Formats: sequence, structure tokens, C-alpha cells
Amino acid sequence: MIKVFTTKKDFDHYRNALKSEKIGLVPTMGNLHKGHISLIEKSTEENDVTIVTIFVNPKQFGPNEDFDKYPRTLDEDLAKISAMALLISAQKEIAVFAPGSNEEIYPQGFSTTISVGPMTQKFEGSVRPTHFDGVTTVVYRLFTITRAHIAYFGQKDVQQCLIIKKMVKDLDIKIKIHIMPIVRNAEGLALSSRNQYLSESERAEALTLPQTLVKIEKLIRTKQDYKTFVSDVLKNDKRWDYLEILDSDNMEAPSAKTQELVIVAAFRSGTTRLLDNILVPVHAG
Amino acid sequence: MIKVFTTKKDFDHYRNALKSEKIGLVPTMGNLHKGHISLIEKSTEENDVTIVTIFVNPKQFGPNEDFDKYPRTLDEDLAKISAMALLISAQKEIAVFAPGSNEEIYPQGFSTTISVGPMTQKFEGSVRPTHFDGVTTVVYRLFTITRAHIAYFGQKDVQQCLIIKKMVKDLDIKIKIHIMPIVRNAEGLALSSRNQYLSESERAEALTLPQTLVKIEKLIRTKQDYKTFVSDVLKNDKRWDYLEILDSDNMEAPSAKTQELVIVAAFRSGTTRLLDNILVPVHAG
Repeated sequence: MIKVFTTKKDFDHYRNALKSEKIGLVPTMGNLHKGHISLIEKSTEENDVTIVTIFVNPKQFGPNEDFDKYPRTLDEDLAKISAMALLISAQKEIAVFAPGSNEEIYPQGFSTTISVGPMTQKFEGSVRPTHFDGVTTVVYRLFTITRAHIAYFGQKDVQQCLIIKKMVKDLDIKIKIHIMPIVRNAEGLALSSRNQYLSESERAEALTLPQTLVKIEKLIRTKQDYKTFVSDVLKNDKRWDYLEILDSDNMEAPSAKTQELVIVAAFRSGTTRLLDNILVPVHAG
Repeated sequence: MIKVFTTKKDFDHYRNALKSEKIGLVPTMGNLHKGHISLIEKSTEENDVTIVTIFVNPKQFGPNEDFDKYPRTLDEDLAKISAMALLISAQKEIAVFAPGSNEEIYPQGFSTTISVGPMTQKFEGSVRPTHFDGVTTVVYRLFTITRAHIAYFGQKDVQQCLIIKKMVKDLDIKIKIHIMPIVRNAEGLALSSRNQYLSESERAEALTLPQTLVKIEKLIRTKQDYKTFVSDVLKNDKRWDYLEILDSDNMEAPSAKTQELVIVAAFRSGTTRLLDNILVPVHAG
């Protein structure tokens, strides 16, 4: 049995009644796939109460982006969470906050933006200049509304993860951020709500993305020249928006201090832009 | 006896030892005058502990503004607060947090900005486009660091007051904002650290600012035509950056819902830009 709230007022009433329970938050835009479910599962393991939010946040979509088209599948989402809830300990609770309107999150007249600065303007930010300000602003709101102790995010949106960690650090927000591994389908494609935009042939094409990242990972792990490979890929294939090897801690060029690399990419299959990344420890043998 | 802290570490240690005391915050950039002292006094009346912060915030100065020139007078400031502390109840405590470097407030790598949006771009914001983002960001930091229950601001910077109130509302920050009346010298000039930039003749000229506001207040209170007067003033005297009568709640044009007007102005005397305002209830007789 899960509890579902569609107004902030009802959610607040529920939240205020919680006492010393340890609370995990899984913020989502709905259209849940196994990646989301893995976050919810982890949160139920680590917390007494798991709050799943389902909110398609208008602030993180640019004027010409897919806000209207973004899949809204609340009934299916609730069914998936309910099915999962049957498998967990009876002591654990799952509450879903799925605001019925934008005003539940952004009351009339709301005008404030939180921006973590330069790192929001690179990679995804270079093509979506206000996207991450929208993400940090909604995540701040969700942190405030839920007063959760831990929040769970997927490594798939690695830049988003780093930006949220930066906001939490700079603003001294009292919450832990847990980043969970990417969940992939049998062929290796990272799960994403946007995969459903792909035609059959585009879906096949899209496998170039994970396959290329795996290839680079192998080159790095075996200490071969990955740089020439990457520059050849970028030269010969215009479907890549970017493909870079960076320090996973700050998405800057790797330095002597780098502990872990991230191979990060955005790739266009048809009109759909897909993201993926792989982490590689620097001293991988 | 006042307590003085120059590092966040020492201040945190002090703050963490406070238990159920009611805490007031008076954020300042130092160079204290009677306006600031009136805020500190009010806070000591209403709280067990008053925290005065003294920090010339680099983020609220534009590249060509007076950050370097801004008067830094810590010894005199501490002497004034100490003198005041002698006059208050022995049960009341005053702590001063005067960070010795910018890193105490903005640790290495800090990059986050809080912006409350359109109202930061009008009036003072139109000539100082990043000023209010700097103000809200430092005030947020000070709220977080001090965990105060009430913060005191002067009505002189009326736009700043409204912007801070807006941030607190939008971000659901658990603090009360008290706005205290403008303190003036015998001739009517609103006290400001920037007044000391004025030569004797500029100081005399500067009185045009409060005198014009008082004249407009009288026209409003006696239900005479103030609009023609204001437009004549602006037409004939280029020293006014702006002079407007607005709804004091949002600094928009007055509407049928307006409860209180604010006559708000920026005036240049020599190279110094001075601010002033007067509040007028709408149903003033």
C-alpha cells in the first residue's frame, strides 16, 4: 500500500506527522522505468519512509523543448510503485507526492532561481542554457517540502548529479545525495523516458552510444591511446553532440588529482538526444 | 561585553552551543551609523542573543563600483556596539561575526547564486544588474550560518527589503524579517555609509532628496495632484535617477489593492548616489 498526495497541503499534513523516521527522497518526472525503480528500491532499503515525487518541472524545459510532449503516465507509475511496495518489508513506507498543478510546487508569484554557476553552462547546459537552473530550483523546493535526509539520483544524468551536489555544498543544505548506477537494457542502452521517442531503426542506431563508451573504457583500462580514437569518432560522425573524458568530480579536464574519469556523451539518434556515461577509476589495471 | 568572531569555525562553535535562545540577526557591511544601531537595539529588545554580522560582500558590488573604496572601520564599529551593549539588560547577549576573509562566507569554489527574478532588475537593479543577486546570496548564507529566528533590515533600502522578503517566501526559509524605519540626521538626510563621500556643498544639495519626498508625501496626504509635481521635478532636474510612487508591497504601479504607497527615489549629489523613500498609507487623511 502506497500513499498518494496530489496537493502540497495534504502532503504537508502527512509530512508533519512523521517524527524520527529516516526519510529518503526519489525525485522523478514520472514515466518510471527500471532506473527509477532501482532508486526507490535502494531508498526503501536505507530509510523508513521513501517519498517519490512525480512532477514534470516546467522550469527545466526551454521554450522549444518537449515539455508538452513529455510522457505523463501517472496511473502506470503508481501501479509500478505499488507492485514494488508489495515486495518490501511491512515496516517500510512509500509515499508519492504527485502535484496536481505547478502551483503546488511554485505558488502564485514564485520568481526565485537557484543557479550553481559556470558548470551549468557546459555540456547539457550549452544547448539548454536555463535547464540546470530549473533543475536546481525544483530540487531545492523538493528538499524543502519533503525535508528528506537522503536523496537518490541516477548516475545517467551525471552533470545533473554534480550540479545538485554543488548546490547542496554551497548552500549547506542538510541532506545526503546518493548517486546510483545507470540501469541498461539487455543491449546496453541506458534506460531513459526519452527512449520511447525512438523508432526501431533509431533504437538500433542508438546502440552506437553505449558501444562507443565501452570501447573507450577498454582503451583506458588497457592504457591504450583513447584520445585518437575519440577524435576520429567525432570527426567522422556528426551525431555526437559531445564525447569527452573528464574528471568525474567536477567535469573539468582530468588533472594529476583526478581519482576517477567519466566518459560522458550526448548522441543524436533521429531527433532524439540521448545521454550516457561510464565511470573509470584512474588506476584501473 | 560583546563576543567577536572572525572565522566561521569559531562562530560555528559559539552558535552550536546556543540552545533554545531566541536569536536575532543584524546583517551589516560595517561602518555603522545610528540606523544600524537602531536595528541592533531592536534586536536586543526582542531576542536573547543578537548576532551582528560585519561583512563587505564582494558579490553585491559591480565591477566598476566602490567595493575597494567602501569604508572598513571594524575598530570603530566594535566600539559602537560595545558602548551600546553597556546599556542593555545583562541577560541579553551580542555576538559579532566579522569574517576575516571572503572565504569564511564563500568557501573555495563557491559558485551558487540565488536570484529572485524580475524585481531585481528594476530601480537599483537597472543600474546595478547583479547587485541584488549578490545581496540575496550573502543574506541566504548569513541566514544559514547564524540560524537566526528574526533578521532586521532598514527600510532605507526598501527594494532590498522586498527582495529579501520574496526570497524568504519563495524558498520557505524559516526566519522572520523585521523592517525598521529610516533614521535621519537633524536636517532630514537618511543616514548612509555613503554620506561620508559627500563634500559640504554636496551634503547641502543632497537635502533636495528628502525635502522633495516630504513635499510629495504632503501632496498625497492632502489629496492634491502629485503626479504633475513629480513629472515637473524629473523634467527640470537631471540629478534624479528615478522618483516614483509605487505600491510598497511589490514596487509595482499602485492598484486598487494597494494598502500603502512608497515614494522611492535615487538622487545624485556630485558623484554619490543616494537613496531615500517614504511610506504613505493609502487612506491617509
